[in-house]
Amino acid sequence: MRVSAVILAAGRGRRMAGDGNKVLLSLGGLPILARSVSAFAASDLVAEIIVVTRPGEEGFAAAVISEGGPRLRIVPGGERRVDSARAGVRAAEGEIVLIHDGARPLVSLDLIERVIAGVERHGACVPVLPVVDTLRRRTEAGDLEPPIVERDGLVGMQTPQGFRADLVRRALLAEGMDEAWPDDAAAVFALGVPVDSVEGDPFNLKVTTPADLRLAERLLRGAR
Amino acid sequence: MRVSAVILAAGRGRRMAGDGNKVLLSLGGLPILARSVSAFAASDLVAEIIVVTRPGEEGFAAAVISEGGPRLRIVPGGERRVDSARAGVRAAEGEIVLIHDGARPLVSLDLIERVIAGVERHGACVPVLPVVDTLRRRTEAGDLEPPIVERDGLVGMQTPQGFRADLVRRALLAEGMDEAWPDDAAAVFALGVPVDSVEGDPFNLKVTTPADLRLAERLLRGAR
Repeated sequence: MRVSAVILAAGRGRRMAGDGNKVLLSLGGLPILARSVSAFAASDLVAEIIVVTRPGEEGFAAAVISEGGPRLRIVPGGERRVDSARAGVRAAEGEIVLIHDGARPLVSLDLIERVIAGVERHGACVPVLPVVDTLRRRTEAGDLEPPIVERDGLVGMQTPQGFRADLVRRALLAEGMDEAWPDDAAAVFALGVPVDSVEGDPFNLKVTTPADLRLAERLLRGAR
Repeated sequence: MRVSAVILAAGRGRRMAGDGNKVLLSLGGLPILARSVSAFAASDLVAEIIVVTRPGEEGFAAAVISEGGPRLRIVPGGERRVDSARAGVRAAEGEIVLIHDGARPLVSLDLIERVIAGVERHGACVPVLPVVDTLRRRTEAGDLEPPIVERDGLVGMQTPQGFRADLVRRALLAEGMDEAWPDDAAAVFALGVPVDSVEGDPFNLKVTTPADLRLAERLLRGAR
């Protein structure tokens, strides 16, 4: 089945120092976004790559992306994450749609292709990792709240999240649909459709803070 | 104030291939446990280091630890994490007790000393990192359950968790106390005592799976 990869690159990066779009920051000499695109470009199973940027940043995005070639398209996104996901899904022409956070530049070819295989079998598939840290809530004042969040069975959802195109269109593009889903699997769950999981990858971290960026730099330097 | 570091090294490592204690596995040519001990040995603020091992493994632990010198003691732990924490707290002689997962070998001197400073100010302090992945529960059958765990304000608790000694003794060693706390801060919270937080460190990962071990290897190679 023809696979479209939608890469979300319209985020604000509020936790990152500075104003700019974090996916344009350099990671080991290449912009984060360029690395995310290259990861999908490396898969022969991916027929098109749709990068969703902030409106007005299409030019920046095009300038920093060195791979993707004729498979690449850049489309403007929206204010919220979900609006950008909708823009990407609307543009996608494949029978399978992968939706990926542009801020996960270290995603591996292996993970991408395992998610695709999961979608072929089950219609919807996300990579997950068990939560190993104890969880608690912190108030806005910075205090930790006593009740602990029960960790048993808890998994963190990574991306790419993959779906049969008809399913994700139904979930995200239905008439009147304006829910701000925290991720795309949530929208598919809301249809009552089961979502399969594959084992995620701790390398596939989300670069959210300057400390994450240093971590990713070290991981890249350590690759061999 | 005199600081005791308690390093928990009695875990089973169920998620790690093989039978052995995961903290005895090699990470970049040194056992994980040896690296954890070295991190605390590097701080002049730490007066003693108490390593809690599985009963019978004291000898292995002593053989792999190359640093710590006269500050180091090795004591046998118990069946559950909390039993080992109790054994460590019982042995500790400092006015401040840090309790650290032996499976977090990349903890930095900076983080250790920020936690100590937090305890000096507030009595109890843990390093935390905001959760960035969307969370969901997975059933034992492997299915993801639709209701999402609300991520706003959610933080993952790392170690070392630091406490004034009288506080953590009251929390963990009170007569008749047998609660299997998921971490030590939970026991202190149960006293109604507030726990302060400092910013955790993404490098300070917990080595739980073979993939985590590969990640830690890459981080070490990438350090310079």
